[in-house]
Amino acid sequence: MDALSGTERLIALSEIQELKARRDHSLDLKEWDTYVSLHAPDHVSSHGAQDGGDMGSAADVVRQLAVTLDGVITAHHSHTPVIEFETPEKAKCVWAMEDNLYWKQGEEDHWLRGFGFYHETCEKRDGVWLFTSRSLRRTHVMMSPGAKLGAERAALNKQNA
Amino acid sequence: MDALSGTERLIALSEIQELKARRDHSLDLKEWDTYVSLHAPDHVSSHGAQDGGDMGSAADVVRQLAVTLDGVITAHHSHTPVIEFETPEKAKCVWAMEDNLYWKQGEEDHWLRGFGFYHETCEKRDGVWLFTSRSLRRTHVMMSPGAKLGAERAALNKQNA
Amino acid sequence: MDALSGTERLIALSEIQELKARRDHSLDLKEWDTYVSLHAPDHVSSHGAQDGGDMGSAADVVRQLAVTLDGVITAHHSHTPVIEFETPEKAKCVWAMEDNLYWKQGEEDHWLRGFGFYHETCEKRDGVWLFTSRSLRRTHVMMSPGAKLGAERAALNKQNA
Repeated sequence: MDALSGTERLIALSEIQELKARRDHSLDLKEWDTYVSLHAPDHVSSHGAQDGGDMGSAADVVRQLAVTLDGVITAHHSHTPVIEFETPEKAKCVWAMEDNLYWKQGEEDHWLRGFGFYHETCEKRDGVWLFTSRSLRRTHVMMSPGAKLGAERAALNKQNA
Repeated sequence: MDALSGTERLIALSEIQELKARRDHSLDLKEWDTYVSLHAPDHVSSHGAQDGGDMGSAADVVRQLAVTLDGVITAHHSHTPVIEFETPEKAKCVWAMEDNLYWKQGEEDHWLRGFGFYHETCEKRDGVWLFTSRSLRRTHVMMSPGAKLGAERAALNKQNA
Repeated sequence: MDALSGTERLIALSEIQELKARRDHSLDLKEWDTYVSLHAPDHVSSHGAQDGGDMGSAADVVRQLAVTLDGVITAHHSHTPVIEFETPEKAKCVWAMEDNLYWKQGEEDHWLRGFGFYHETCEKRDGVWLFTSRSLRRTHVMMSPGAKLGAERAALNKQNA
């Protein structure tokens, strides 16, 4: 049950929204240390196959992203959250999202444009809100013809390294 | 006049922003019962011709949308609201917006991409904020060549049913 | 140091977010008087070359924009702010952003689509929050082949006037 007072709830909402802002910004700026610091050690990330499948902990995710997003410009934008508190220190959040990715394969320009909803949970631990899980549920995704991302791109990067 | 105290006003802002979030999410997820429940029985929707013209009440709107959006993937994203209170239980809201629609006509992929501002009013009734009106003022809209939406698409769907 | 109480900080956050909303809306609606009124007289704007370079004060910016954006439809959308208070009346803000511009060159349709982060400062003066600086740091920008914007477009407009 949500036993937060009016003001306490507003403060929690604002802290969770800032947590999300820092996650989206640090992802697109590839500030991986900041990115990891926003997630609990036991955080679990599970996306669709196109978006990395079961990605494990935040540290695991970053190890994968640093490879698969090497040379990829990304813009992850999140909108209009619905945030519900299970307890004063535990919340479920749904954000509408759009992401745009741009990269080269040799001389060719490639891109991905996608839409969906982030389903996230977060918890306040030692006074600080942290993500504890994330799942991306896609509604639509488009890619340039011949585009390679994820494992395929990681293999391509390794081959060219 | 806005006679809300600081905290009361912040709570109302957060409730109205959540109302908007639930509207955009339920529209794109085609959760029509939820969509209707966010609108007052006397809600009035009036859009440009391309966006459905005078669409009537929320129940009327949903009856039309369920037909015209059948088979259409939609992403309606709303941004940076300006919310003004006429009374503590009556507000006017302007949101910047972008929408992206994707659908098939036979084997052909079609799309719409648009920009504009939602002008909305909402009221707190029996302790719950509800939409009482919505008008979409377009600044720009693009469609794939040969794209058919709205009444044209509804006719096409009926013909193919 | 941030010496704001919980509620005072929430009010300041909401006022700064509304300031940003009014800026984005008035820019896209070309409501230049409103646009100028949201900026301090000593406001400084510095963007990348493509986005106008060192643009000077808000009044200078508007004089340039009124020329370079004449006949250009724009949508500037800002997302997920990180707002930090240096003092109770001085804040630094970072917003993720996307902009889309559409215009004609003779009979040809042209466009720009860009992504980046707005870095802004604002101050509360005589009880009202105002922008004191803005810098746009691009992560990606695309333009239609042959597109002319900024000084080139201003010259083109003058030539055709």
